[in-house]
Amino acid sequence: MDKKVEELLLYDFYGELLTERQRQIMDYYYNDDYSLAEIAELADTSRQGVYDLLKRSRKILEGYEEKLKLLARFEEMKELLAEADHSLKELVRSQPEDDALQQTVSHIKTKLTAIDELF
Amino acid sequence: MDKKVEELLLYDFYGELLTERQRQIMDYYYNDDYSLAEIAELADTSRQGVYDLLKRSRKILEGYEEKLKLLARFEEMKELLAEADHSLKELVRSQPEDDALQQTVSHIKTKLTAIDELF
Repeated sequence: MDKKVEELLLYDFYGELLTERQRQIMDYYYNDDYSLAEIAELADTSRQGVYDLLKRSRKILEGYEEKLKLLARFEEMKELLAEADHSLKELVRSQPEDDALQQTVSHIKTKLTAIDELF
Repeated sequence: MDKKVEELLLYDFYGELLTERQRQIMDYYYNDDYSLAEIAELADTSRQGVYDLLKRSRKILEGYEEKLKLLARFEEMKELLAEADHSLKELVRSQPEDDALQQTVSHIKTKLTAIDELF
């Protein structure tokens, strides 16, 4: 996985556990895509200060992941959902005329999508 | 949900974030089912000390749940999985002679069970 994507996912999962200032600066960097210099300006600190805070925040998030492994579990869940979805598509393909089956499969898909969106 | 069951689930989800001593005493209480007096003896402290430590530990775990909502999401996931499973059973019942369908459904069930076991 792309490093910045992984960092963003870690932030999505554990960001609530950071301080407000850490979250603010991570938001600027990961969600608003500001440069370090721009963030320094916005947060009234130095470029080095922003760099250090981002580095420390990432380390905190990685520490949570080491212990809770949410990101790892989430990725495994994604794979399992994709495999289940693949099999559901097979069912639909094998009996295209069976409306009741199509409807039940569509119902199951709704549930799996809702599971995916929980995380 | 039973209060002790909920506390045990919180401990399962976030226990890794406690100190070793907090975990040890929670283990005695929640997994080994020792009384406060027995734990006090084992942990070389007073009954009141055990009581306070358990109370503080539960508060820490509840704080994590407030922020990360893993337990709440896990329970919603359980419900969605049960609903998906219910629909799969319907499929099987509606076409009991269709071996290919039975096999595909069984494959999907394996995936959903694996998702359940991730958490």
